[in-house]
Amino acid sequence: MGMTRRAVVLLSGGLDSATVLAAARSEGVECWGLSFDYGQRHRHELAAAGAIAHAMGVARHVVMPLDLRVFGGSALTADVEVPKDRDSAEMESGIPITYVPARNLMFLSVAAGLAEVAQASEIHIGVNAVDYSGYPDCRPEFIESFERTVNLGTKAGVEGQKLRVVAPLVTMSKAQIIRFGAGLGIDYALTHSCYDPLVSKDGTVLACGRCDSCLIRANGFRDAGVSDPTRYV
Amino acid sequence: MGMTRRAVVLLSGGLDSATVLAAARSEGVECWGLSFDYGQRHRHELAAAGAIAHAMGVARHVVMPLDLRVFGGSALTADVEVPKDRDSAEMESGIPITYVPARNLMFLSVAAGLAEVAQASEIHIGVNAVDYSGYPDCRPEFIESFERTVNLGTKAGVEGQKLRVVAPLVTMSKAQIIRFGAGLGIDYALTHSCYDPLVSKDGTVLACGRCDSCLIRANGFRDAGVSDPTRYV
Repeated sequence: MGMTRRAVVLLSGGLDSATVLAAARSEGVECWGLSFDYGQRHRHELAAAGAIAHAMGVARHVVMPLDLRVFGGSALTADVEVPKDRDSAEMESGIPITYVPARNLMFLSVAAGLAEVAQASEIHIGVNAVDYSGYPDCRPEFIESFERTVNLGTKAGVEGQKLRVVAPLVTMSKAQIIRFGAGLGIDYALTHSCYDPLVSKDGTVLACGRCDSCLIRANGFRDAGVSDPTRYV
Repeated sequence: MGMTRRAVVLLSGGLDSATVLAAARSEGVECWGLSFDYGQRHRHELAAAGAIAHAMGVARHVVMPLDLRVFGGSALTADVEVPKDRDSAEMESGIPITYVPARNLMFLSVAAGLAEVAQASEIHIGVNAVDYSGYPDCRPEFIESFERTVNLGTKAGVEGQKLRVVAPLVTMSKAQIIRFGAGLGIDYALTHSCYDPLVSKDGTVLACGRCDSCLIRANGFRDAGVSDPTRYV
């Protein structure tokens, strides 16, 4: 019978969501990319998401404005000082300062609305509970509870076209993700992970190499035995 | 000990959410109103929400832009013809055409983010499963599942400051809601329910009197024995 699978894929411009998109495309899934313009620290993330979406042949790339600045300053990574040079014990203690209140809940909810409009039966998200153990909204129990909720609250769910939330990276280490993605042929030079990059006037993005995200990414490439295409300061 | 209760109250400009806000204010709850500019049919709803928020003394009224038009036309009530003169059997058959995909899921998720920023421990929402039985996201099982999900996915929830989702109208009829609200002294002339109003140049809003929402509202006032302040075409 072979119906085309259609999915909404949350796309941040980072390494994880690019890997999720590549995996879905390699399985022949028709993908609608969804990114958010939410007042994040650096808007070049959106440009990266656009480049990744294009390189992987999405059916459509939707950028949703969701201006969390109306909440007030403390909701945003843009207003906190990014910690540098932390060791893994420090990274693993508690919820990171870069936590944005209810971010994945909001993103998944908008993805659910788009999925219903697109008649997609899947949402794919690159959450990971290994390297980012401090984020409550990256845990499998949250993702599973969200899936139950969305199927109780949408027309599609109630009428039996259940929406599935797919989180293929949730139990992988960063090195495993990179090895998996490298095997799919991803050009990781298109992706950005740094919380505090230097963006030059010509648009070149240089990663700081010292924030949690850079350290986890660099260690991931090293442990995976994959050469790191990231351009550092 | 007497800690001040603080809540985020979803405020549409309609009768139900105004009643929820009045109820919370009557209990001394500090309220942050939250409304959405999502491309709804008539933006006068936002003006009504603002007037209601002001009349009831909210601590703050946040209007969040959430442009569902980026999804494409079918997500929005603005693009469908509003059914008129339906009887209650017709209204109760299936999911209404005015259904917006995942609307309450998206609204509650943003409310959860705002609640976390505001350090509010409650979200109040005027969903009602009696008169709007066709909306899956107005049912108690959806609200309860959302509450479980949010407490798994937020820092506040994980750290033990559980968020409660309060839906005080969920089992009330429209007449019961109106009687309850009239007892609280609400000026229902500030509220708008019509899906297809006529807005004159001077900003006067006249309800059509024939859409599902007008019919349910008018019947509610009649059954409650409360005089209907709505101005009809």
